[in-house]
Amino acid sequence: MRAEPFAEPELTRNAFLGGRIALWQPREGYRAGIDPVVLAASVPAKAGQSVLELGCGAGPALACLGARVPGLALAGLELQPGYAALARRNLADNGLTGEILDGDVADPPAALRQRSFHHVMANPPYFRAGARSTAEDDGRELALAGPVPLSDWVALAARRLRPGGTMTVIQRAERLPELLAALSGPLGALELLPLAPREGRAPRLVLARGRKGGRADFRFHAPMVIHRGATHLADGDDHTEVFRTVLWEGGALKFPA
Amino acid sequence: MRAEPFAEPELTRNAFLGGRIALWQPREGYRAGIDPVVLAASVPAKAGQSVLELGCGAGPALACLGARVPGLALAGLELQPGYAALARRNLADNGLTGEILDGDVADPPAALRQRSFHHVMANPPYFRAGARSTAEDDGRELALAGPVPLSDWVALAARRLRPGGTMTVIQRAERLPELLAALSGPLGALELLPLAPREGRAPRLVLARGRKGGRADFRFHAPMVIHRGATHLADGDDHTEVFRTVLWEGGALKFPA
Repeated sequence: MRAEPFAEPELTRNAFLGGRIALWQPREGYRAGIDPVVLAASVPAKAGQSVLELGCGAGPALACLGARVPGLALAGLELQPGYAALARRNLADNGLTGEILDGDVADPPAALRQRSFHHVMANPPYFRAGARSTAEDDGRELALAGPVPLSDWVALAARRLRPGGTMTVIQRAERLPELLAALSGPLGALELLPLAPREGRAPRLVLARGRKGGRADFRFHAPMVIHRGATHLADGDDHTEVFRTVLWEGGALKFPA
Repeated sequence: MRAEPFAEPELTRNAFLGGRIALWQPREGYRAGIDPVVLAASVPAKAGQSVLELGCGAGPALACLGARVPGLALAGLELQPGYAALARRNLADNGLTGEILDGDVADPPAALRQRSFHHVMANPPYFRAGARSTAEDDGRELALAGPVPLSDWVALAARRLRPGGTMTVIQRAERLPELLAALSGPLGALELLPLAPREGRAPRLVLARGRKGGRADFRFHAPMVIHRGATHLADGDDHTEVFRTVLWEGGALKFPA
């Protein structure tokens, strides 16, 4: 748990979305990979709508989403005060407004109980607490391996969603059974979009979405491929067109119609 | 429910596996597509082992598996006596031996309670009873839309499996959440192998496997592609090499190592 604010020497500032935004991140703690960027690209939010991120960390997904879709009401819930403070700074420094609430997904603050949202997004810890060797940094460890089951994340999202609102989650492929089980019930019209590192490779990440009150059948989309070619190219950017656009130009990652 | 045996004029006899086997099937009732053939190709059974199929119908999967792997002890459980009788005839007519038990997955016969198996396979009804318009033929309807939840199929398989034994299921992609939820718990080391009609298309079928007592992480394999090319070719067989071998030569469909 990172309770105290990060001091300046503990931080780096990194460009995202081809320089459209820049984010303060701890040198030693949890640092964003492509996952929050891809999550933000996939949320079907439109100007004028409200979006809540559960477990927003230093705010990379909120900042990416705010940069892509102007006019959103952004909110985040973060357990670790040090990261929540960074998220506030990252929104402000990128000219975005949003409300970052301190609190636990398993015991949400009263301020959240009055609110409802058009969309919820989450990039929950990829490992179950105790199921892996421990990272050296406490705050990073909590971001990687949380004790709160995925079903609690979905249950909170379902309570806070407006009717017809969506929850989108990015997660390790290995937790697909737990993720689908968590989404089934509280949400409907589930969709699964696997993300494969290369053509023909096993998906390592999945995007999953559910809709509050949705009744449509589950939809299993073809995997989207992140990198071109069968192996890593030494020179240049080998991302596929979709992911190049998502990662470097702030483009949307749309689920198939 | 088809209680009475099929009369000769109600039947056709069709070649499978490139003519390696021939199967009696009702003209009007449930007729095998590629699904039981693919299921049988995917079961990792070896000579000397025992295999139980839950809901074996007229026995296409048992016959395909018996033709591919000699020396198996085959058994099937089938609710509809008319289909169970066909399964016995289909095994015998193809020079195979096996025991077809009459009974319900939801209320298995006493004869099954004494038995254990190295592998279980199942191609459960693809629709939930009541969730679709009804087929004209009663027996076909029951094969397509059964009232027994997938969790009952898995629970019975888990009880009848030897430690370390596998259950392999083929099912519509739309039921993946229910299928993974059913497999989680009674079985472990789950694996998912989606089957896509063509490259880049959404999977329409899934093969899923669990192991009794398995503790490995869930594995999400890359989809296997059934047909070559982006659209149907008017002339000739457009199956991919793997599926051509599975469907026409009785080859195995191996899960990735």
